[in-house]
Amino acid sequence: MSDLKSKFLQVYSVLKSELLNDPAFEFSDEATNWVDRMLDYNVPGGKLNRGLSVIDSYRLLKGEELGEEEFFLASALGWCIEWLQAYFLVLDDIMDNSHTRRGHPCWFRVPKVGLIAANDGVLLRNHISRILKKHFKGKPYYVDLLDLFNEVEFQTASGQMIDLITTLEGEKDLSKYTLSLHRRIVQYKTAYYSFYLPVGCALLMAGENLDNHIDVKNILVDMGIYFQVQDDYLDCFGDPETIGKIGTDIEDFKCSWLVVKALELSNEEQKKVLYENYGKPDPANVAKVKALYKELDLQGVFAEYESKSYEKLVSSIEARPNKAVQAVLKSFLAKIYKRQK
Amino acid sequence: MSDLKSKFLQVYSVLKSELLNDPAFEFSDEATNWVDRMLDYNVPGGKLNRGLSVIDSYRLLKGEELGEEEFFLASALGWCIEWLQAYFLVLDDIMDNSHTRRGHPCWFRVPKVGLIAANDGVLLRNHISRILKKHFKGKPYYVDLLDLFNEVEFQTASGQMIDLITTLEGEKDLSKYTLSLHRRIVQYKTAYYSFYLPVGCALLMAGENLDNHIDVKNILVDMGIYFQVQDDYLDCFGDPETIGKIGTDIEDFKCSWLVVKALELSNEEQKKVLYENYGKPDPANVAKVKALYKELDLQGVFAEYESKSYEKLVSSIEARPNKAVQAVLKSFLAKIYKRQK
Repeated sequence: MSDLKSKFLQVYSVLKSELLNDPAFEFSDEATNWVDRMLDYNVPGGKLNRGLSVIDSYRLLKGEELGEEEFFLASALGWCIEWLQAYFLVLDDIMDNSHTRRGHPCWFRVPKVGLIAANDGVLLRNHISRILKKHFKGKPYYVDLLDLFNEVEFQTASGQMIDLITTLEGEKDLSKYTLSLHRRIVQYKTAYYSFYLPVGCALLMAGENLDNHIDVKNILVDMGIYFQVQDDYLDCFGDPETIGKIGTDIEDFKCSWLVVKALELSNEEQKKVLYENYGKPDPANVAKVKALYKELDLQGVFAEYESKSYEKLVSSIEARPNKAVQAVLKSFLAKIYKRQK
Repeated sequence: MSDLKSKFLQVYSVLKSELLNDPAFEFSDEATNWVDRMLDYNVPGGKLNRGLSVIDSYRLLKGEELGEEEFFLASALGWCIEWLQAYFLVLDDIMDNSHTRRGHPCWFRVPKVGLIAANDGVLLRNHISRILKKHFKGKPYYVDLLDLFNEVEFQTASGQMIDLITTLEGEKDLSKYTLSLHRRIVQYKTAYYSFYLPVGCALLMAGENLDNHIDVKNILVDMGIYFQVQDDYLDCFGDPETIGKIGTDIEDFKCSWLVVKALELSNEEQKKVLYENYGKPDPANVAKVKALYKELDLQGVFAEYESKSYEKLVSSIEARPNKAVQAVLKSFLAKIYKRQK
């Protein structure tokens, strides 16, 4: 494990122990044990990219190494994003009736947890407010942090809502799947919290007013959309060994960039193939969809999309007057360009 | 309907229409319709006591009738509490696998809703932040409002957690049920948001610092506990016609004040009756528990508790130096003392 990651994980331990001793609630041993286990199960087990990127971004904005206190605060904000992610995932897994997450059973499938997981999700969200209050109350940007987390959470839940209501069970209707719907779902459900939120946190710590950085937000949202298109692409065309899972977007009737592009490029006959085979569990149906994707050269279409997006992002980034902000954005882009996993 | 209630409901319409036009999200018609219906189904259908009490309390603190703008703002805070309540109820009904709420099917049981209700719960919570930001950002007490709602939500979810983990399916164990557990669940799960939060909102609007009103908080929490004890009492001994439902706390193995008191007052033989009959659906078991409650004269024990609590609350209230604060607290107490429903 990198030194940075292990220092970041030490901050998790501090934050957890503060939460388990929060004076706003009288913990019994049973309650302490429950929250302790729930946190360890759901919060620190991911790749931690979102959280770590707050530290990276803040260091780039500052232009020098962080002192101990600053490292702790940037890490705490990073962990708030990881807590937010855990909160979304715990609830999403309930709603999607999922089985596994990060290689383990979903939290609500753990014996004795069940739907108590919904309340645990709420607790995870509340922990963010507790962490922010404990470590940032009194800072000039405290209220902006609260507003930022609130707004991004609202946007994420709204994106999740359009995703859920357009893919309602029993209403499978491919004609709804358009590039603009895909963009809207991805922008709200993923891009704000995964790409904009870490940089927003770092900008606030650096004393910036977020109203002056609307272009930075837009660039990060575009990067988030590009990232999700890669995800959709890898679900079908990636190497399962490398990405660590076998994609099931076709079976699951997902509003993936691939099916949206396929619909756009198909003639009537090809559309019929999609309508008849998309969203069915039988491998024979899946194979027909994949064959059509190849016939339409979606691999080539994606390669074209990827290089165009990259060019556009680079030129938007280079149009930013602030070199430190440019460095933050370029660092994000470098992490995702042409990724294979 | 009272004039006050109808003016309060007009504010609901304004807030809803603002939320459906929130520029932080691009609504499609489908999304607008979903949120519109979800709000009407879940937010305004209760007794609205919590929400209305913000207006009452603020008027008493001010000592004069409210102007139009002030009435709107106090109502908006009242509605935030109703939104918070709706959020808890939507999620609680999922976790308890409930069937009806306020005489209608629970939201998650409405066709096509299902577990999307969990995300709707999240949206309800997020609407509070949106309402606060739109109408209170810039007020000197804005950050205190955010902190207050966050802290109370955290306490409520923590109370819900201890309730859920002590009554875990398959672990029915009466020996856990003590007065101190009962108090802890009620204090956190109900009292803070139902009693303290409305007054906390009114105090903030009146320019008060909540740190100077810890005693007010403690009195309101005690009132909330007294209120819940009444609720537990009425569940068994109230008139179903008057309270509008048939209590099932005995069948449901609830940690009710009655069972806690019964355990405290029982001899070994009587305890055996409780252990053998509490938490079973059969009416014969329920009847045995009720007969024991009568044998132990829980009606008399409750009457004693009720008058003692009342005396204690009155004397705590009269010890408050501020007459307007006294009036607020007395108004709350008058609404609940010796209630039959």
